[in-house]
Amino acid sequence: MATILILSGPNLNLFGQREPEVYGTETLADMVRLASATAAAHGHEVEHLQSNHEGALVDAVQSARGRVPALVLNAGALTHYSYALADALATFDGVIVELHVSNPQGREAWRRRSVLTPVVTGIVAGFGADGYRLAIEAVTGLLARKEAP
Amino acid sequence: MATILILSGPNLNLFGQREPEVYGTETLADMVRLASATAAAHGHEVEHLQSNHEGALVDAVQSARGRVPALVLNAGALTHYSYALADALATFDGVIVELHVSNPQGREAWRRRSVLTPVVTGIVAGFGADGYRLAIEAVTGLLARKEAP
Amino acid sequence: MATILILSGPNLNLFGQREPEVYGTETLADMVRLASATAAAHGHEVEHLQSNHEGALVDAVQSARGRVPALVLNAGALTHYSYALADALATFDGVIVELHVSNPQGREAWRRRSVLTPVVTGIVAGFGADGYRLAIEAVTGLLARKEAP
Amino acid sequence: MATILILSGPNLNLFGQREPEVYGTETLADMVRLASATAAAHGHEVEHLQSNHEGALVDAVQSARGRVPALVLNAGALTHYSYALADALATFDGVIVELHVSNPQGREAWRRRSVLTPVVTGIVAGFGADGYRLAIEAVTGLLARKEAP
Amino acid sequence: MATILILSGPNLNLFGQREPEVYGTETLADMVRLASATAAAHGHEVEHLQSNHEGALVDAVQSARGRVPALVLNAGALTHYSYALADALATFDGVIVELHVSNPQGREAWRRRSVLTPVVTGIVAGFGADGYRLAIEAVTGLLARKEAP
Amino acid sequence: MATILILSGPNLNLFGQREPEVYGTETLADMVRLASATAAAHGHEVEHLQSNHEGALVDAVQSARGRVPALVLNAGALTHYSYALADALATFDGVIVELHVSNPQGREAWRRRSVLTPVVTGIVAGFGADGYRLAIEAVTGLLARKEAP
Amino acid sequence: MATILILSGPNLNLFGQREPEVYGTETLADMVRLASATAAAHGHEVEHLQSNHEGALVDAVQSARGRVPALVLNAGALTHYSYALADALATFDGVIVELHVSNPQGREAWRRRSVLTPVVTGIVAGFGADGYRLAIEAVTGLLARKEAP
Amino acid sequence: MATILILSGPNLNLFGQREPEVYGTETLADMVRLASATAAAHGHEVEHLQSNHEGALVDAVQSARGRVPALVLNAGALTHYSYALADALATFDGVIVELHVSNPQGREAWRRRSVLTPVVTGIVAGFGADGYRLAIEAVTGLLARKEAP
Amino acid sequence: MATILILSGPNLNLFGQREPEVYGTETLADMVRLASATAAAHGHEVEHLQSNHEGALVDAVQSARGRVPALVLNAGALTHYSYALADALATFDGVIVELHVSNPQGREAWRRRSVLTPVVTGIVAGFGADGYRLAIEAVTGLLARKEAP
Amino acid sequence: MATILILSGPNLNLFGQREPEVYGTETLADMVRLASATAAAHGHEVEHLQSNHEGALVDAVQSARGRVPALVLNAGALTHYSYALADALATFDGVIVELHVSNPQGREAWRRRSVLTPVVTGIVAGFGADGYRLAIEAVTGLLARKEAP
Amino acid sequence: MATILILSGPNLNLFGQREPEVYGTETLADMVRLASATAAAHGHEVEHLQSNHEGALVDAVQSARGRVPALVLNAGALTHYSYALADALATFDGVIVELHVSNPQGREAWRRRSVLTPVVTGIVAGFGADGYRLAIEAVTGLLARKEAP
Amino acid sequence: MATILILSGPNLNLFGQREPEVYGTETLADMVRLASATAAAHGHEVEHLQSNHEGALVDAVQSARGRVPALVLNAGALTHYSYALADALATFDGVIVELHVSNPQGREAWRRRSVLTPVVTGIVAGFGADGYRLAIEAVTGLLARKEAP
Repeated sequence: MATILILSGPNLNLFGQREPEVYGTETLADMVRLASATAAAHGHEVEHLQSNHEGALVDAVQSARGRVPALVLNAGALTHYSYALADALATFDGVIVELHVSNPQGREAWRRRSVLTPVVTGIVAGFGADGYRLAIEAVTGLLARKEAP
Repeated sequence: MATILILSGPNLNLFGQREPEVYGTETLADMVRLASATAAAHGHEVEHLQSNHEGALVDAVQSARGRVPALVLNAGALTHYSYALADALATFDGVIVELHVSNPQGREAWRRRSVLTPVVTGIVAGFGADGYRLAIEAVTGLLARKEAP
Repeated sequence: MATILILSGPNLNLFGQREPEVYGTETLADMVRLASATAAAHGHEVEHLQSNHEGALVDAVQSARGRVPALVLNAGALTHYSYALADALATFDGVIVELHVSNPQGREAWRRRSVLTPVVTGIVAGFGADGYRLAIEAVTGLLARKEAP
Repeated sequence: MATILILSGPNLNLFGQREPEVYGTETLADMVRLASATAAAHGHEVEHLQSNHEGALVDAVQSARGRVPALVLNAGALTHYSYALADALATFDGVIVELHVSNPQGREAWRRRSVLTPVVTGIVAGFGADGYRLAIEAVTGLLARKEAP
Repeated sequence: MATILILSGPNLNLFGQREPEVYGTETLADMVRLASATAAAHGHEVEHLQSNHEGALVDAVQSARGRVPALVLNAGALTHYSYALADALATFDGVIVELHVSNPQGREAWRRRSVLTPVVTGIVAGFGADGYRLAIEAVTGLLARKEAP
Repeated sequence: MATILILSGPNLNLFGQREPEVYGTETLADMVRLASATAAAHGHEVEHLQSNHEGALVDAVQSARGRVPALVLNAGALTHYSYALADALATFDGVIVELHVSNPQGREAWRRRSVLTPVVTGIVAGFGADGYRLAIEAVTGLLARKEAP
Repeated sequence: MATILILSGPNLNLFGQREPEVYGTETLADMVRLASATAAAHGHEVEHLQSNHEGALVDAVQSARGRVPALVLNAGALTHYSYALADALATFDGVIVELHVSNPQGREAWRRRSVLTPVVTGIVAGFGADGYRLAIEAVTGLLARKEAP
Repeated sequence: MATILILSGPNLNLFGQREPEVYGTETLADMVRLASATAAAHGHEVEHLQSNHEGALVDAVQSARGRVPALVLNAGALTHYSYALADALATFDGVIVELHVSNPQGREAWRRRSVLTPVVTGIVAGFGADGYRLAIEAVTGLLARKEAP
Repeated sequence: MATILILSGPNLNLFGQREPEVYGTETLADMVRLASATAAAHGHEVEHLQSNHEGALVDAVQSARGRVPALVLNAGALTHYSYALADALATFDGVIVELHVSNPQGREAWRRRSVLTPVVTGIVAGFGADGYRLAIEAVTGLLARKEAP
Repeated sequence: MATILILSGPNLNLFGQREPEVYGTETLADMVRLASATAAAHGHEVEHLQSNHEGALVDAVQSARGRVPALVLNAGALTHYSYALADALATFDGVIVELHVSNPQGREAWRRRSVLTPVVTGIVAGFGADGYRLAIEAVTGLLARKEAP
Repeated sequence: MATILILSGPNLNLFGQREPEVYGTETLADMVRLASATAAAHGHEVEHLQSNHEGALVDAVQSARGRVPALVLNAGALTHYSYALADALATFDGVIVELHVSNPQGREAWRRRSVLTPVVTGIVAGFGADGYRLAIEAVTGLLARKEAP
Repeated sequence: MATILILSGPNLNLFGQREPEVYGTETLADMVRLASATAAAHGHEVEHLQSNHEGALVDAVQSARGRVPALVLNAGALTHYSYALADALATFDGVIVELHVSNPQGREAWRRRSVLTPVVTGIVAGFGADGYRLAIEAVTGLLARKEAP
């Protein structure tokens, strides 16, 4: 059994309240519950942290080094300029899934550039709340392949 | 039961032979088999077409209009310049998943821009052959939500 | 009496079905009929080819060389990147009218650049289905001036 | 019967004298006569104003609001930088045809960008003096469609 | 004895007819004959394919994998945007010579960027029809060095 | 008592008629009345000029030199390209308030660059008709501080 | 009576000490006192928070949602890169005034771009400490208009 | 004896009053007197027009066609964006000297680009009031060479 | 005797663990010890703070104002986007040395731009752990020159 | 009496032989003779050096420091990239006239940027061989003004 | 019999010692010997000059004017910025072959831009030491065609 | 004992005379003496060469290959465009310190780009004459680490 750390960045605590036509009506708690259930079905568990503070997310990535085998990161607006978060991710040698609930291409220009993508394993974007389930599916697929001989 | 059309673009028929350190050792047939199994587990089936011809892929997208509810498209290099394919996708009103086997960000600069993303529902990228499974998972999640009241 | 070749590019066979608020409700057949009637009123006739394949359109332009005195070309999305089509047009020494049904400026940024314009005689854009009539009017005006002493 | 206002911008009063290999040998008066004849054949009439002053053209567009149903505008060099003219056109709710006698793509780079195009209905460019006839044809087509039930 | 595959892209079948001041008066058949003679002088033979269809050229590159040791490719306008062709070339592990009959630097800006160059072995450009002879000379030099201990 | 000169540029005479969802329903006369009342409450008076002619606005700025201590300028579209107006303002050594009724950032890209801002004292933008009151408030604050020892 | 939340970003606690030729000699406390007095004159009150931490400002904007009807935000250097702050502001449905004490155009290039402007109601910039009074005047004008029938 | 037309653009009537450290203390009248004296020494005379209106300068250039053999033009800020003035100059087939009193390179970035330079004969810049003398010297040199066999 | 404040930004606490081929095997504690010893040899002492939080580093720079005569700052990824840190440094009137352990030019493009450099006294980059010694050497040289008459 | 140093850069020794349609038929010796005569008429003399070596021109500028009051420099292609020459000129505190025989705007794009202009007093360009006379006229005007009280 | 001048630019004297994985192990002398042998086989001879001084290469190009019918130039790093060399080449009216031993596209970005290409006859790049043979082959082909009637 | 070669580029022989507010009052000889003393304290010696000729500096770098273990290079303006020098440095396999006396960020834009940095070991910039001492300190640190087991 593995622990998967899910990190949610600034303003994601407002899911369900903020622009529901873009982000849907599920709350962040609903999404984390969906991720937990998916992980449990594969024999894993999830930890979750949401913060509006870049430094707190960097601290969390550092604390995950050597302790958990996989991160799912929905960094919100920090996706587009936090090189500090990118540097922290680069020091993590497990699986990293970059998650976005909406499709960034259908929105403002600055949302189209991610400074995190160069250091992640893969991306899941545009599937609404179901993205949390898919990100966990992706992690479990990657963990299973790592363990296979 | 729904039919999901999977389209694979230029050079993807070489999966397993071409740069295995980037794309892995599974063949395209292996990947389609994985997608089929995943679809079957949800009560769906898949059709598949691979072509090196942009026009053939445009024809295929047009033929899918009103006939199948979902497309999974791994357009290969056409991802980066085929506005004709983007226009065809824009006329399809079902679910569209853009799929990439490798993480485009870890590669050449021109692979970082997709002209298709503005017209797709969501993206799955960077998970190797397992991306075919995840794309089908994403489609089935979207179809289930559409059917729910 | 002259033959005028009308070429229609990718996805234009969907006129009337695709985004009618942008392209109107007339079908491509309606538009070609309108062009034919206009040509007939001036004593000319039209040939028409639609294809989703860039190569087929290049073949058609080549076949027109020395055989017909004028081309009307609505290249669809190929307008924006097909240098092969531009090269083919450059070898055609008759009249070439670049036709767009919608006004490209009111749409996505990439639709504002045409790689074909430097090698055409003139442009008609933004008048919906009536553009087919106007393009033929433009051709007949140019042919008449050529013949005049 | 409708009145169609034709506006001609800076230096267009020199048609026939200025670079005849680019603009042809017809004078502006010839071109307006051709437009008038075309309009008359459809039961309409034309008004015409030429000015080298941006402000005078803005005044004229404003005076056309609610008075005439269609404008044909050949703005000359103002095409490329007069946002004031673009703003005035945006307040006019009739038909607007942007007209160029030469094909701007075959000339200097700065002639390839039009700040007016986003607020016009359609474009006619590259057909020499015959463009004045075609612009009126385009207007009459649009007016006829507006009136049709 | 080795077989060298020569591929010619869109509109190159018009050599001798199209802009002779740029491309000279030899036809494509003349050029291929010159290449054949040069190859024969070194004990090799050539195959040749010309197509206006990008997909057909991709198919041909794929069919050359493991079958011929060297490609000479004059991709015409596809040189400047066909990432699909670039991807196909990247899977070919023999010698690749990029050939241009004219010097691209003396022409339009878009002809100065080649998306193929990063994956070819060498370039021959600007020598007119004689480029076909020089490209074969270049290939035979490279093949000879490969065979030398 | 001071006189404050308010200058309004091209098309602003259409306030109340043009895009009321952007600019509100007050007319320019309403806005000037509001500014006058605000100025009167501080013991000042206002002069006002509206023109669609760049040259007339430059003349007006020049005539204000040494005669009035403050300008409020809503230059309309000239904001974005009139370096002549910027040069005129640079010769005025009193207070200059750049005023916009709408928030330029929520509109077209070219409205985001002002060539006037480098030579003004301050900016008031986005408050609709109330901006005229606020601009006068800003001027009176600046004049009061100038007079204070 | 309404509460207006004023937020001040990094380094603004140094007003009066830092580059007084740019920012003036008033301290932040002086400026907040001026804002309070202006608000009181209209029957409102102000809350104020200064922080050097982006996350703390995001938290504060979130806590203001549904609790206060208006924000005045002088974000300091975060103005130019904090998309997280922009996202938080976008979830606030009251009035937002972006305030700058100096005129950003007269300074370094990077100070000319604000990532916040697209989501604010209006801007007040360049009036020194008096900007705090004007921002409150702007808020009260907007609140009054909202309440009016 | 020839007449040389000197045209001065927006704000140049303020020479001697505006930023004397950049433009010197001579007035425009002083500069025109210096030009007149220089012309007289060569047996020529000068006409002069200053205007803040672009259209008036375009009118003046047109009126000079076929009437005077040489223009000296100090277009002020219009130098940097008036394509209408550039088009007018392009129709004048005599000598054109572009004159600037200050060296544009030592000033704001937008002053470094002249849209007029491509259509002038030569440039004199950076010599203060003496530039008016030098521009006339340049014209007389060019006129003399034209007359020489 | 002076106190020199050394500030270390996000992820620098991982020195010795993170990419040792880029950053070497010394830990941050080793580097600070080396700096302390170097300072002691010149009769000075060092204080050190590491934080992953931008706000904490801004607070620390502010607290150093008027208290210590010199800062050594290795800001990590914040070097490339923290204008808030740049603003804080601009208010510090002592010596500031910008320190990087690796040579930023040999790495990703975004590491080549420092927003801090315009406000620092000098730079030391590319010398590994020895950079900490050199930065202190640089500070002591600057302090000695300041004290010298 | 003053000595004016004229420096001519790479390839200018070919004047009269190289592209006479651009540069005219006078040789460099002719041009220097014209400059000498002009200088003599004002009581001055000229020295001249031509070199194809950037270093030799830098040496010459250095040797002129404190010895001659004015330089006329036609740097040829070095104009566009020789920052070393720009640095040398910046150390010369007399008058510097940048001279070009042709109008750089009518030629290749790279000829439009001068790295020397920011450090020169004035520019004379586009007047052919007569530019040498005008440059000396410009120098003598500047020297006369310096001497005047 | 013709003499072909081969020019080699800065650092090329280090061939065989410098980065052999890029440039191979042959020395410059080896390469010149290969070129000589190839020329001899066609009845021609070669001259060779290597210099690290841009000026010396410019001198050499000048000295070749009217004396030899063909140049082969491997300019090394000067390829990318020496407009002086480009200007010198533009004055040479024989054949010019631009030669590069490595394929510039597979290296640093600045190596992809050649300022020489616009003035050369053709390019040979990417064939290692064999490029010297191919360049001579190219020259002899061009010379033969020149002589043929 | 090692010899360290110090190279100084164009115009650096003017230290002490040129813009002392930027570069200080020490002469180059003073700076070299300081470097010598620092080297001697570590048991090393220095050689020094200053030249205004790019070629001479390239020669010197080449002569240092295999003879000295370390270079200190202050290339002056060549820093910004001399790819020839960069290429020469790339062939040197010892330690290279790039030295600047002033902080390039506080000066003109073109001084912010160094074409040498990608091939040096480290940078010392902004410390005035003391930079010569620090560069030698940096070299000795690097040499000591190389020798340590």
